[in-house]
Amino acid sequence: MIPVDLRSDTVTRPDERMRSAMATAEVGDDVLDVDPTMRRLEERAADLLGMPAALWVPTGCMGNTIALMAHVGRGDSFLALRDAHVINNELGTPAWLAGGMPQALPELTPEAVRATTLNTGPYYSMRTSLLCLENTYNAGGGTVLPTAEHARLVGVAKELRLTVHLDGARVWNAAVALGVSPAELTAGVDTVQSCLSKGLGAPMGSVVAGTEEFVAEARRIRKMLGGGVRQGGVVAAAGLVALERIEDLAADHDTARALADGLVELGWRVRTPETNIVLAEAPGMTVPAALERLTALNVLAGPMAGLVRFVTHRDVGKAEIDEVLTRIRGTEWGEAGSSSTTARS
Amino acid sequence: MIPVDLRSDTVTRPDERMRSAMATAEVGDDVLDVDPTMRRLEERAADLLGMPAALWVPTGCMGNTIALMAHVGRGDSFLALRDAHVINNELGTPAWLAGGMPQALPELTPEAVRATTLNTGPYYSMRTSLLCLENTYNAGGGTVLPTAEHARLVGVAKELRLTVHLDGARVWNAAVALGVSPAELTAGVDTVQSCLSKGLGAPMGSVVAGTEEFVAEARRIRKMLGGGVRQGGVVAAAGLVALERIEDLAADHDTARALADGLVELGWRVRTPETNIVLAEAPGMTVPAALERLTALNVLAGPMAGLVRFVTHRDVGKAEIDEVLTRIRGTEWGEAGSSSTTARS
Amino acid sequence: MIPVDLRSDTVTRPDERMRSAMATAEVGDDVLDVDPTMRRLEERAADLLGMPAALWVPTGCMGNTIALMAHVGRGDSFLALRDAHVINNELGTPAWLAGGMPQALPELTPEAVRATTLNTGPYYSMRTSLLCLENTYNAGGGTVLPTAEHARLVGVAKELRLTVHLDGARVWNAAVALGVSPAELTAGVDTVQSCLSKGLGAPMGSVVAGTEEFVAEARRIRKMLGGGVRQGGVVAAAGLVALERIEDLAADHDTARALADGLVELGWRVRTPETNIVLAEAPGMTVPAALERLTALNVLAGPMAGLVRFVTHRDVGKAEIDEVLTRIRGTEWGEAGSSSTTARS
Amino acid sequence: MIPVDLRSDTVTRPDERMRSAMATAEVGDDVLDVDPTMRRLEERAADLLGMPAALWVPTGCMGNTIALMAHVGRGDSFLALRDAHVINNELGTPAWLAGGMPQALPELTPEAVRATTLNTGPYYSMRTSLLCLENTYNAGGGTVLPTAEHARLVGVAKELRLTVHLDGARVWNAAVALGVSPAELTAGVDTVQSCLSKGLGAPMGSVVAGTEEFVAEARRIRKMLGGGVRQGGVVAAAGLVALERIEDLAADHDTARALADGLVELGWRVRTPETNIVLAEAPGMTVPAALERLTALNVLAGPMAGLVRFVTHRDVGKAEIDEVLTRIRGTEWGEAGSSSTTARS
Repeated sequence: MIPVDLRSDTVTRPDERMRSAMATAEVGDDVLDVDPTMRRLEERAADLLGMPAALWVPTGCMGNTIALMAHVGRGDSFLALRDAHVINNELGTPAWLAGGMPQALPELTPEAVRATTLNTGPYYSMRTSLLCLENTYNAGGGTVLPTAEHARLVGVAKELRLTVHLDGARVWNAAVALGVSPAELTAGVDTVQSCLSKGLGAPMGSVVAGTEEFVAEARRIRKMLGGGVRQGGVVAAAGLVALERIEDLAADHDTARALADGLVELGWRVRTPETNIVLAEAPGMTVPAALERLTALNVLAGPMAGLVRFVTHRDVGKAEIDEVLTRIRGTEWGEAGSSSTTARS
Repeated sequence: MIPVDLRSDTVTRPDERMRSAMATAEVGDDVLDVDPTMRRLEERAADLLGMPAALWVPTGCMGNTIALMAHVGRGDSFLALRDAHVINNELGTPAWLAGGMPQALPELTPEAVRATTLNTGPYYSMRTSLLCLENTYNAGGGTVLPTAEHARLVGVAKELRLTVHLDGARVWNAAVALGVSPAELTAGVDTVQSCLSKGLGAPMGSVVAGTEEFVAEARRIRKMLGGGVRQGGVVAAAGLVALERIEDLAADHDTARALADGLVELGWRVRTPETNIVLAEAPGMTVPAALERLTALNVLAGPMAGLVRFVTHRDVGKAEIDEVLTRIRGTEWGEAGSSSTTARS
Repeated sequence: MIPVDLRSDTVTRPDERMRSAMATAEVGDDVLDVDPTMRRLEERAADLLGMPAALWVPTGCMGNTIALMAHVGRGDSFLALRDAHVINNELGTPAWLAGGMPQALPELTPEAVRATTLNTGPYYSMRTSLLCLENTYNAGGGTVLPTAEHARLVGVAKELRLTVHLDGARVWNAAVALGVSPAELTAGVDTVQSCLSKGLGAPMGSVVAGTEEFVAEARRIRKMLGGGVRQGGVVAAAGLVALERIEDLAADHDTARALADGLVELGWRVRTPETNIVLAEAPGMTVPAALERLTALNVLAGPMAGLVRFVTHRDVGKAEIDEVLTRIRGTEWGEAGSSSTTARS
Repeated sequence: MIPVDLRSDTVTRPDERMRSAMATAEVGDDVLDVDPTMRRLEERAADLLGMPAALWVPTGCMGNTIALMAHVGRGDSFLALRDAHVINNELGTPAWLAGGMPQALPELTPEAVRATTLNTGPYYSMRTSLLCLENTYNAGGGTVLPTAEHARLVGVAKELRLTVHLDGARVWNAAVALGVSPAELTAGVDTVQSCLSKGLGAPMGSVVAGTEEFVAEARRIRKMLGGGVRQGGVVAAAGLVALERIEDLAADHDTARALADGLVELGWRVRTPETNIVLAEAPGMTVPAALERLTALNVLAGPMAGLVRFVTHRDVGKAEIDEVLTRIRGTEWGEAGSSSTTARS
């Protein structure tokens, strides 16, 4: 059985066109001067994201870290949804590197933001300095933050004098799902980080965008963190190709829905996917047991928020999804003596 | 009207006996050698807390910070109740100074500890290294963690290979309320911090206790943070007197109950106090409005967890509590047009 | 033989008058409100130092750390003399806590400051943000920075847009030695830290002084580091007495000179003391060997900058110095087979 | 005039063979699994460097930072030559990120290492934990640390229980200059960082190597810093080609010598180059003035250690060096009225 890898859209591999662009990219020393392909990528990304300027970074983690280092300081706290990537999945860098104490929001509403923000206490109180949004929201199952909700959240943040950073690792997926431009999803934010290396298929790289002043500071912080590469044009070229493929993400959303529908038919409990992430619960099985059984079927998935997470992407088509469903259909699910076990591990 | 200060038991002032002890304390250079009064205090505190060794620190915040610096590192997370002092009230030092990403527990149960601990993930995952208990729990209203619950929590922590630190700023109150020795409340913990300067009445100082090895490391960290004082015996002497007064805290618990009962009679909603903290809601008023009205009555209280917090202490007796209730009784409560406002500000 | 402790002026013990002031000090909660004795001390210290405001801190280390945390950030470097206390004797806190990379000056001249300052490089260069002076200079043997030299250094720092922090742990000694007021020695500096607990004899405590804005920030940082004590008036009272005794330091300088003269007569090589520190080299002995022999004579000293350091202070008078010299005179110095060993260990 | 870029060997551009390797590289997700080309590169680099294991990192700065983060902690200091790259050129990350206080060695001798190491002090002393070597030494003008000196330094470090990290950004140049294998230059070190992107010509990337345990920790730290890329094989492929070209560096050393000889003939003062770096002083001109005049000639160089630095590399041949010398010969050097100005800016 050929493996079908649905662990993440990070597994996408550069295709021929991308490799060809890399092989012919015009390059320069991007620390001493400017790598021209880097510069083109950064300008294109800034334009798409509706921001004044952008900076390439090797990873989305570095992009978020740079933004948080720029926005928070010792004694500050920041707001984010309780299972946000910056809280759960970045090895604590927002805490120990940026210096912010997270205040997890139970739900992402203007009321919750207002109630949780600390800004009236005496000198010995923490002060909330940042609201971190995440669109799409990974731990929620790739859920989309609609523009109206986004606007209300940014509005209350501005009123409370909070900086707003958007972890838009998959903001492209949100834009496609909503049928809007990515720039509409950054309205009012101070900074945004977006990945070139997930659904868009570049081998590596993200951008972090904001004002010219922010990008100047970000460039300095990037050097500190060891992200200031030299002839980066060779990978920026792949990023430029990636940015032409935003609309292709609609296909990933289709395959996600097909997978979700098929799983429901097979008795799984599934959260209806909004983009390319399917969170599901195998009938009568814990997450580790279900993942083990899937692995035996050469279907690779992962755990997320107490559920099984499948991520669709450009290297997996409808045919592969059908094949996955066929393999699952031909297997017995549920565990002897564990029928009452919930999927939450 | 004479002010009655119920903002915190930190406002207690040293009495004559304490001042006399300070004035006659034998002292030495506690950095170069050992201040003999410091040493006696540290030995006495270690003994009372049932720990091998203890170290004086200027404040409880420094005691907690030192323990967390010793226990967590970059990439680690720690568990604590969602409104724990180390999360909400220490200016984020557990994050930016100790380097731990907090994982707030919604409730303090072995199940919650088990479900929240991260210890099976791949190399790029956070790892939970510490469970931080708080007894009594300030934001809960001075609630007591009973020994059986404590034992279960420590048990699951050990099983999960978590270090356990007890923020026992008011562990003396818990011991008195439960009728046990403080040492029974540190069973199985690795380190504990306890204040001499709250209900016990010393003008300043706390102790942080643990193994000899921990205290050696803590002494070094204390020097780094600027807490290594010279002839500290002058304040350690006050701490020694404070440690003789643990049983006196029962009186503070009595006045807290008297205050709570009186407030209930006056139409306030009150959480039944377990120790010396009363969380209450004035009828039909927001917390800021209620605090303002109390201030006008020369009754000083503070906000905590969306409620009004009164803290009783050795400088406030039954007579003052009666006086407070009299003043409150003589005042109109509730706000015009705001009867539906909840007390949560 | 009664021990004579010349290891440091930190060993001075509070006398009766100081203890009496502590025992009768008016106090308050200096975190929630203001401790009135604290406030009087801070105002008096600010006045003496010629600064707009001052803040009590438990130790001089914390005072320097707070100032450096306020003045430097990641990517910054700071200038200080190569064996400055902030470089050699504060456990690296200027680096890992304040975040500054030290640039050690080989000599303290305007030319060296100018040549070492980094302020013209590209975005990926460190930027020098602070000049840290130290007066008196401990590792130099308590040497004094005269006002004219001070003025030239401050002048070049301002021209280069460097903040200036004065580690004035013993600035009182410098003032007495020069016959000027302490305020003359802070001319043009942004912040200064001065100890109450060294030659002035308070049991603990220092002040860090600067603008009102700086002190507001310093108060917040002090809370972070765990230095925000409650009824600190009990030790501030000692500090107030200490500040009345600045002129007494002249006696320590006299005993230092007497000790130096006596040692020279006994064949030691001695740096002529400018204040209360004597750096000396026993004839034909390494520092560890000399310290061991002194300890056998119950004369306590310490190592500093490759020499034996004696520090005179208010608890040691002329009689004790004579006694020290008598003990040294009655002992054989030099090591068999090690006559060519230099004093640099 | 065609520009000749001698600012750094970082400006080298990937050639056709390197680009072709990148375009055809086999790749995988190097975070979730292993990218096979990455793995091959890391194994090849470890082998060449004589270390058990290696890890690709985007930049040499990140490689050094990871090593220092692994080796030093708060309260530690580290030793390095006074103008070492980790002290002067990494934006202070060894201080604020790794947490080490640098102790600059005036000269790199076993005696200096021994005299500067702090390991016998009391608990409140810094402790030296690391010796950081740099071979070739950039600020010295690409000077080579011979194997015998290296062995003596490593020997004394081991005796003093210091960890040894080698900043071997240009260790390949040192190996070629000495006619030894790179592995001979890492004898006894704990970790080494070496660049693929300088003289070897890869567009980006370095490796940091050590034990398996170190590399496991380094992989975790790399993720924290944002250096854990996905399909990194596309750039690792370039690194593999780069590692075949170590011997080519001899040509760069030849052109450096040719440049140096030519400059001497033209009246410049020049340090005889040992590898590919030429430090020189234009006759009668400050460094900024000389750099300006060179720029006007379309000869790009940079400042280093108070001199003009030229770096030769694979994109500059003998013909270009001749052209540079011709352009310099045709220009007037020296400044009106500034003949006494030294080259130190």
